[in-house]
Parts: sequence; structure tokens; C-alpha cells
Amino acid sequence: MIAAKYKDMLGAKSVIRELSEYATARGKEIGYENVFDYSLGNPSVPAPEKFRQAMVDLLEKCDPMALHGYSPSLGITSVKEKVAESLNKRFNMNYTYKHIFMTAGAAGAISHAVRAITVPGDEVLTFAPFFPEYHPYIDLSGAVLKVVPPNTETFQINFERFEDMLNENVMAVLINTPNNPSGIVYTKETLEKLAEIMTKRSEEYGHDIYLISDEPYREIVFADVEDIYVSKVYDNTISCYSYSKSLSIPGERIGYIAVNPSCSDAETIVNMCGQISRGIGHNCPSSIIQLAVAEVLYETSDLSVYETNMNLLYKELTDLGFTCVKPGGTFYIFPKALEEDAKIFCQKAKNYDLILVPGDSFGCPGYFRMAYCIDTEKVERSLAALRKFVEAEYR
Amino acid sequence: MIAAKYKDMLGAKSVIRELSEYATARGKEIGYENVFDYSLGNPSVPAPEKFRQAMVDLLEKCDPMALHGYSPSLGITSVKEKVAESLNKRFNMNYTYKHIFMTAGAAGAISHAVRAITVPGDEVLTFAPFFPEYHPYIDLSGAVLKVVPPNTETFQINFERFEDMLNENVMAVLINTPNNPSGIVYTKETLEKLAEIMTKRSEEYGHDIYLISDEPYREIVFADVEDIYVSKVYDNTISCYSYSKSLSIPGERIGYIAVNPSCSDAETIVNMCGQISRGIGHNCPSSIIQLAVAEVLYETSDLSVYETNMNLLYKELTDLGFTCVKPGGTFYIFPKALEEDAKIFCQKAKNYDLILVPGDSFGCPGYFRMAYCIDTEKVERSLAALRKFVEAEYR
Ligand SMILES: Cc1ncc(COP(=O)(O)O)c(C=O)c1O
Ligand SMILES: Cc1ncc(COP(=O)(O)O)c(C=O)c1O
Repeated sequence: MIAAKYKDMLGAKSVIRELSEYATARGKEIGYENVFDYSLGNPSVPAPEKFRQAMVDLLEKCDPMALHGYSPSLGITSVKEKVAESLNKRFNMNYTYKHIFMTAGAAGAISHAVRAITVPGDEVLTFAPFFPEYHPYIDLSGAVLKVVPPNTETFQINFERFEDMLNENVMAVLINTPNNPSGIVYTKETLEKLAEIMTKRSEEYGHDIYLISDEPYREIVFADVEDIYVSKVYDNTISCYSYSKSLSIPGERIGYIAVNPSCSDAETIVNMCGQISRGIGHNCPSSIIQLAVAEVLYETSDLSVYETNMNLLYKELTDLGFTCVKPGGTFYIFPKALEEDAKIFCQKAKNYDLILVPGDSFGCPGYFRMAYCIDTEKVERSLAALRKFVEAEYR
Repeated sequence: MIAAKYKDMLGAKSVIRELSEYATARGKEIGYENVFDYSLGNPSVPAPEKFRQAMVDLLEKCDPMALHGYSPSLGITSVKEKVAESLNKRFNMNYTYKHIFMTAGAAGAISHAVRAITVPGDEVLTFAPFFPEYHPYIDLSGAVLKVVPPNTETFQINFERFEDMLNENVMAVLINTPNNPSGIVYTKETLEKLAEIMTKRSEEYGHDIYLISDEPYREIVFADVEDIYVSKVYDNTISCYSYSKSLSIPGERIGYIAVNPSCSDAETIVNMCGQISRGIGHNCPSSIIQLAVAEVLYETSDLSVYETNMNLLYKELTDLGFTCVKPGGTFYIFPKALEEDAKIFCQKAKNYDLILVPGDSFGCPGYFRMAYCIDTEKVERSLAALRKFVEAEYR
């Protein structure tokens, strides 16, 4: 019998994907360079040359049996040792390879983390605005994702609503800083207050509440923004990392889980991830990709373009009168639409070949997301279209 | 709260893995060349040079953004087109890219297939002897794996017991031919009889019963053995393929699902796999590996060593008086132990540095598996150890 829960999902097409398909179709009509496609969070700068070189070297120098053989079920130990070392150096942590589990990107990391620390029916809280894929990541594991409404002043955490919604069925809190879609980086105060509340409630409920920290944008933090390593602030943290954005290799499906050594059951959680993999059929990321990434742990793509683009857009948007919190990182900005229904606003923007994503699916209606991982030259050209759109429709 | 179902699994160590670890440790003592390690099903011949060349070419010639970018959620269309074409040519099928879904090996393929066509509580039947990982693949999806006892005469299907166990809660039958651990290839008669029973019962129960055909050893079939493409015999077949063994790249995690175009809901099943991926966090195999494999669809590693090894072992085993069905493919052989408890038999064999795996975890106590994916030279040297073992312990 066809599983209805997945079949039903087929109807609900992703808004982002639909917009991106529209942009591609429109590009075929008028030339893709004339479509200001801010729909997709795909890196727009190439992978570092050193990554390419590491891949070629592995292919030329390694015994193919060792290179392409099965990884140990918890990932390649030498790779995990290097990952642990790089985190320790950078964030003054004390990970060993026993705290690291290699995954298929952040998606794989979150899928494993949630299965390790919840049982079906448990609640996981996240904060709007949030990445819409959190619904399948969490809900299809059997746990239930609940979304805390946004603090639209700052896009930091709405603590009042968080404290209301936190209850003894909540086994994990899922955060994402730097944030998709707001671009906001949680401050030290935000993280410390979050940790304080979670610690207090863990004691009150008599069970751990884990923090799943989704960090694919960890490397994309802008000038003068304080950048806190989440796991330093709360022991029961499972960091979920991805090389998709930092190395511009999202198709290669590589990332990891790093469980804070002071986390309850830290090594057990990593070992359980190996068991979870057997059930969801990953059995480790590609071995050559694991080995190649381990050679470039201190590299990133040239990420500076994202900050350049952000500054251009932020200036134009505020000049045009948009309410907009200035992003501290990522390649997203999340302004308030100029009419109540952001879906209508984004629909109208299409007439100016501006492809914007309404905030509704991010749990934040009335706002819209621009993914500015596109060429700066195109961002510059889009500013005139943006001005024209606003002046024609909202003046 | 730590998920007990995964935590409990930590206790039950895999017998195969334990034996393999023992072999490695013993190798450190006496030299690995002196340990006749028949424990692991790891390919022992290198990937074809053309695979390496395809990888290097992609790295040297492709735009890194296109090469390493996100795959479409159902896999790279051009890759799937080529896979469909190669199957059509070889097996006279009529697949299109719409019937193909790229996966992380056979493990990924089965994990998706079972979620698409069962709901929690549904039964899946498989036949002993069977690959022990079927338990996590199936049971952790929520469906329940039930094992039909073996036909130890031939290791074809025990139809009497199959017909007893088939009931209206069975939504899928999972087969593996060529088979791990028996090495047996199902005959045309076996497959036709299986199809006939399944068709009759589908009608009787008023719902489809799908055949999940696990085919990682499809390319390893020995001389004079008739090799049937399972999907030709039964329309409701989901073929699960892996390049792990045919190209000797098990660590790269690549394979696919091919849904018979005449299967009920064929294209829907593929589309559902895309949704299932969102929930179990794969989001397609590595993009460069997908593209590289598509360049070598008509290649395999030099697989001839496996047949050479099988012939050497089969002759020696039968000469020594073992009851043994001659393998038609794979790199496994599955003789009857010389005493009732195969665990004790394999324990004794260790004293002769022969690492054999008891059949118990394959659902077939009293038998043992030898994985002869090792150098022929070593197989030859092992024959004396085997003779010595048998003569000392059982004469
Ligand atoms: C917040 C967030 N989490 C997770 C992911 C998934 O990342 P990956 O491609 O590494 O699985 C994304 C991708 O866009 C993201 O934006
Ligand atoms: C019968 C069988 N099915 C599935 C698998 C898993 O294959 P993969 O590594 O492609 O996931 C194996 C691996 O040994 C196997 O023997």
C-alpha cells in the first residue's frame, strides 16, 4: 500500500522551488541575466581550488581500494580526528574523534540528531523565521516540530513565547544562527538567556533538553558581528555542520555532527548515530569526499561577495523605506513587505522580474526573503528594478 | 530522552564485524597475510581505471558550481536518463528517467523503497538465508521483517513455508539474487513461481504486493548460470541496485531504484522517494559520484577473480566432504558446518586462522559463510589450513 504520508506531500510543492522554476522559465524568454532571481540559497562562488586539488590528488595517489572502500560505520577516524582538532583550535573546545559523526550535509546531521534524542511524539521547538525543511527533518522522524513565533523587532528569540511553549514534552530545541531566512546572528545575550532557561527547565522536568544547533552558515559572518560558538554556551549541544555553503559543495552532501564532550551521553549519541544510519540507509557520506574535505578544513570559498551584496541591498532597501533588520551573516535578507500579504507583494514583484520569496513558509507572514547568493553585478542591476517596483506599486 | 531503540542496538555487536576485528588483531600478531580472513564482503579488486579517469575529467573540465551544486531532488536527470537507457538495452525494458531514483547504495535504495510502499506495522517477507542488515533497513522504517525459513537443499525458495506465511498484511517481498550469503542465483522457475503466487495473493487480498529486488551482485554471475532480470518476471518490482560491488566503490555510496514502468503507481513511487529523502536526510548521493558513474555504466571491475576463487573453494570443500550448494554468483559460499552448532565450528576454525562466519545471523543455523573476495593466492594457501582443520577436528 502506497504510504499516504509521503504521497500527500507530493501535492504541496515547495514555494521556493516553484519560484525558482518560474525564474528559469522566464530566463528562457528574456535571458536569464535579466531575471533577478533571489529565490534559491545556492552558493554563487566556486569551491576553493584546493578542494579540487585535494580530490585530484586522492584519485592520483591513493590505492583505489582504500580510497573507495566502505568507511567504518561511524565515519573515517582520521577525518574525524582532523575535524575535532580544527574545532578545538578555533573554538577552544575539547572534542575527540569520538564526538564527531560524519553526515550527508546538515540535512543528514539533523536527521540523525533528532532520532538519537527523541522518541515519536516528543516535541522539538524551533524559532520563526525558520528553514521550512525543518518540518520534514523533524516531523518524518516521528517527533513533532512546534514553531515559536518571531520577534520581528530584532529576529532574536521571542523569549516570552518560548517560555510559554516550553513544556515537559520538549526534548530538543533547534536553532539556526546565522539564520536562514533572516540573516541574523544570535547575540551572546540571546544564547546565554536561552541556555539559562533550558537549564532551569531541564532541572524542573527532570530530563535533559538538548540544543540542536544547525550551523551551515557558521563561516559566513560579516564584519563587526560577534560570532559565538553555540556549544560553548550550553553543554547539551549537538552542533550540526555542513560544508555545503562554506566550500560551495552542496551537491556533495557532506557535514558532521559534533556532540559537546560535556553533553549527557555524548559518546553514546555518536554511537547511536551509527545505528540510526543503518535504519535510514546513509552509511556515511562518500569516502573520497570525506577525505578531500579533511584536507581543506581551514579553507573556504571566497565568501566576501555575500557581504558586498548584503550592503548594497540593505542600503537600497532602507533608502526605499523598507523595515529591515541588518543581516549579520548568511546570504539572506528578510525585509517587511510593503503590503500586509507578502504573497501578493512577491507576486507583483514578478512583473519587474524580481523573484522574492514570501515569508509565510518560514513562519513569518508579511516578510519576504531575498537570497543574494548571486553576482554583485546582477545585484547592482536589480536595484533599479526594485526602485521601479516600489515606486510604481507603493507610491 | 535518548532513544532506547537505537541505544539498545549498541549492545548487540555485529558478529561479522567482531570476526573482522578479530582477524585484524590476529593479523597484527602473525602478519595479516597469514590470516585467512573470509569475514567481510568487501570487494577485493580495484575500481576500473575508467572510473578514476571519469572523476579526474569531471574535476578538470567542469565548472565547479555545476559539478558540486545541489542535485535536483530526484537525482540528476541526465544521469537517470543514461541509467534507464543502459537497463533498456541490456534487459529489454522501457524505463525512462522518471522510473529511476539515485540512492546511497543498495542500503539507501531499500530504505526508500520500503518507506514508499509500507506503513508502520505492515509486514515484509524475506527468505533465509538473508543479509542481516535487512533487519535495520526494514524494522527501523516501522514495517516488520519476517523471515521465511530456508530450503537448504538448493537455497532456492521454500515455497511451502512462503505460502503459509504470506498473509494480507504483507505489502512487500524482499529478495536478493545473486544471494548473500548463499551465492545462489534464483532460477527462472523460482522467479516465475514467486510471481505467480504473489499475483494470485494480490488479487485475493485486493492490494498490490510489491517485490523489492536487492541486486548489488547483479554483475557477478558465473559461467553457464542463467541470469534473469527480476523485474521482467513481475511487474510490481522495485529493483534496488548498487555500484558498490560491480565497480568496487562501496564507500562512495551510490546506487539507484528502478521502478518497473508497469508497476502500480510507478512514477508516484519515484516522486515519493524524493519526499522520503527529505525526511531521512539523504537528499541524493554525491553529485560528482552520480556524474562519474554515468560515464562508466557499461564497465565493471575485473570480477573474474571471484569465479576463480569460488571454483577453488568449491572443489576443496566438496573433496573434504562438505555439503555445499555451488554458488552461481557473488563472492560468497555457504557450506554446511561439520557439527550442528556452526558457531562452535567457526570458533574452532579460528585456531587454524580461518575466519568463517556462522550462518545464524543469516537465518540459517548450522551453515557458515565464506566471503572469498580476497586474493586467489591467499585462497590457495587457505586450502591447506582448511584441510588441516577438518582432519584434526572432524576425522
Ligand atoms: C538553515 C539550513 N539548514 C540546513 C540546510 C541543509 O543543508 P545541507 O545542504 O548541508 O543538507 C540548509 C540549506 O539551505 C539551511 O539553509
Ligand atoms: C545483499 C546485500 N544488500 C545490500 C547491501 C548493501 O549494499 P550498499 O553498500 O550498496 O548499500 C549489501 C552489502 O554487502 C548486500 O550484500
